[in-house]
Amino acid sequence: MSLVVQKFGGSSVANAERIHRAARRAIVAQEAGKRVIVVVSAMGDETDRLLELARQINANPSRRELDQLLATGEQVSIALMAMAIHQAGREATSLTGGQIEMRTNRAFGRARIREIAQRERIDKLLDGGHIVIVAGFQGIDEESNVTTLGRGGSDTTAVALAAALGADECEIYTDVDGIYTADPRIVPNARKLGEIAYDEMLELAALGAQVMHSRSIELANNYNVVVHVRSSFSDAKGTLIVKETQEMEKVVVRGAALKKNLARVSLLGAPVGGGLAAGVFAKVAEAGLVVDDIIQNVQHGDGTTNISFTTSADDIAEARSIAQALARELKFRAVEIDQEVAKISVVGIGMRSHTGVAAKMFDTLAAAGVVIENISTSEIVIGCIIRRADGDKALRAVHEAFHLDRDGTVGAG
Amino acid sequence: MSLVVQKFGGSSVANAERIHRAARRAIVAQEAGKRVIVVVSAMGDETDRLLELARQINANPSRRELDQLLATGEQVSIALMAMAIHQAGREATSLTGGQIEMRTNRAFGRARIREIAQRERIDKLLDGGHIVIVAGFQGIDEESNVTTLGRGGSDTTAVALAAALGADECEIYTDVDGIYTADPRIVPNARKLGEIAYDEMLELAALGAQVMHSRSIELANNYNVVVHVRSSFSDAKGTLIVKETQEMEKVVVRGAALKKNLARVSLLGAPVGGGLAAGVFAKVAEAGLVVDDIIQNVQHGDGTTNISFTTSADDIAEARSIAQALARELKFRAVEIDQEVAKISVVGIGMRSHTGVAAKMFDTLAAAGVVIENISTSEIVIGCIIRRADGDKALRAVHEAFHLDRDGTVGAG
Repeated sequence: MSLVVQKFGGSSVANAERIHRAARRAIVAQEAGKRVIVVVSAMGDETDRLLELARQINANPSRRELDQLLATGEQVSIALMAMAIHQAGREATSLTGGQIEMRTNRAFGRARIREIAQRERIDKLLDGGHIVIVAGFQGIDEESNVTTLGRGGSDTTAVALAAALGADECEIYTDVDGIYTADPRIVPNARKLGEIAYDEMLELAALGAQVMHSRSIELANNYNVVVHVRSSFSDAKGTLIVKETQEMEKVVVRGAALKKNLARVSLLGAPVGGGLAAGVFAKVAEAGLVVDDIIQNVQHGDGTTNISFTTSADDIAEARSIAQALARELKFRAVEIDQEVAKISVVGIGMRSHTGVAAKMFDTLAAAGVVIENISTSEIVIGCIIRRADGDKALRAVHEAFHLDRDGTVGAG
Repeated sequence: MSLVVQKFGGSSVANAERIHRAARRAIVAQEAGKRVIVVVSAMGDETDRLLELARQINANPSRRELDQLLATGEQVSIALMAMAIHQAGREATSLTGGQIEMRTNRAFGRARIREIAQRERIDKLLDGGHIVIVAGFQGIDEESNVTTLGRGGSDTTAVALAAALGADECEIYTDVDGIYTADPRIVPNARKLGEIAYDEMLELAALGAQVMHSRSIELANNYNVVVHVRSSFSDAKGTLIVKETQEMEKVVVRGAALKKNLARVSLLGAPVGGGLAAGVFAKVAEAGLVVDDIIQNVQHGDGTTNISFTTSADDIAEARSIAQALARELKFRAVEIDQEVAKISVVGIGMRSHTGVAAKMFDTLAAAGVVIENISTSEIVIGCIIRRADGDKALRAVHEAFHLDRDGTVGAG
């Protein structure tokens, strides 16, 4: 008998009517002969409501107590979901992270799952015909302190359960109906993908695709869990995130992404010396700033060099103060901040076996009048830093050039 | 080093300002050299909010899932309380019913405590200088299902912790400042009691005093826990609920109570026969109706009898249908419902060793023009059924006659 894990995010359980709709999905799957585990997030704005309560009490709450507080959001959802399934005349039992003994480390707010100790309890309930409802986002450490898994935590819970119990599929219900070749708001003929490889999805997530958090995709990859991203609001098939196959490699570029909210921080005119870059990025990492790309600049004739990196534009105030401290300490001539940059990237596992992708991308951007300011590449990604004002134009041009609106295998040549 | 358990009800933690106030009380106690455990209820209307969410999903929710849902209310409160204590620069750790392993039976919604398995964890935190915040009202059964303790559950949690950890005192913070000789809204010169015996408090609770639920008083009595009922809004000493002493027995009447919301159900003209009353009250109990007093009527000359009992006026619809079914089955002539009755009672352990209390009470009521329709007595209570319209007058007369406005020992004579 096949097992499916269905995960419903906050917007899919935001009110009674949506909870009933999610309950019906679980029941339909059970009627189709499947064993069903449902993972739910906190209702709609519940997490924000709880954070606001905390903020009224303490501007800087302890992470342990914050997790104790936030975990109630999912506990409310699981109880209501079980009640909705009962209302439809089916058996269901809700279980918290503590009740399934979702054991994590003690990193409150960003805990890592170690094991699910009560798999037998879940199995027994499934054997008894129950739909089992599990609270997403939460676990417990070895002392039974409540932990939470951080951003995308409920996806991680769903994938971990699918892995631990050997589910055939982990369905992620969201407000989009799948993964697209590019953001359809910018590229009107963007196409929904039937399937995408874990590595490709990981790169797209890193490039800002909000659909699933990297951690849950990594976990799915590690345990070979088939993830099905689909819409809460329709029955259409969504996108399967799967292990790559030889067939999939025939597609050179799976998708294109535009990361708009970037800023470039440049440290100008540093005296060249041993370990300069290492020194800079050690300090940046220490300050907790997430660096997107590091830009290596050529050495000047006067024995100085420039070091640049891009970071989220949201963190620019922090980045500026770090850069200024570094400039003083390491005797850079000046700090320059450019908040008008973006990154256009193409992603595809097919790049490993195809050549000419980079050249085609550069030609395409040049033909569209887009100036490339920096290039970064990995095995399956080519990214170019460009002016933010050119972003939408660049994305449409690249999408067109690689024929992403069409299904099938397209060469690079 | 002395240990105190402080319990704050929903109105005492209804918003951020009140949570900070409760936190200060805990801190003051710690600064006075005490080890402090705090038990909290759900914030203000939180339980009602959760019940309304459940009602929107399922009109008749499973008790297990309702407990899973409702227990989140106290979990929110403990986290916020810990944050408030941290804000004041003190150490605090919140613990759910699950985390202290408050083991109960599986009677969801009205569970009974069996043991507190994690006493050592609490002790260790107290040793480390932490104020320990425990969620009231909730426990877990042997399978880690969440259970709740029913009405007055947080008081029960507080008393159980005080008993298990050998606290010197269990402070119950409420919106009244103690136990009074009578309801001050009816008797303006009612006096706050310095102390009251467990048995007296139990009788007053049964007579409608809302301050503490009978179960928590019984538990305090069983484990000899000193309970201090006091106001959240002042530092004045409240009322101590304690084991009775010989000194306390010198007071004949501790307090007087008026139970207003009573109704009398009479089954008229039943043929007298073996086990008639037993038959009636077995059926009444089976239907879950709570009987206040049973009134024995004299046998009529025609070989029939009347059986009456009083019950809460809130349950009158149910009482009527049960009585009508009984009348058909047992061939009573008629059913009569009187919704205009009340009960005036006096309570005092001193009655055991003093005579004349009943006579004085009857004289007092007669002098006030109050007709006594029935009398019920126990070792430490005398109660009279009267017209509801006479209730306030009767309470004031009895309060006056037994000099309850004055402290000290007053004879019955």
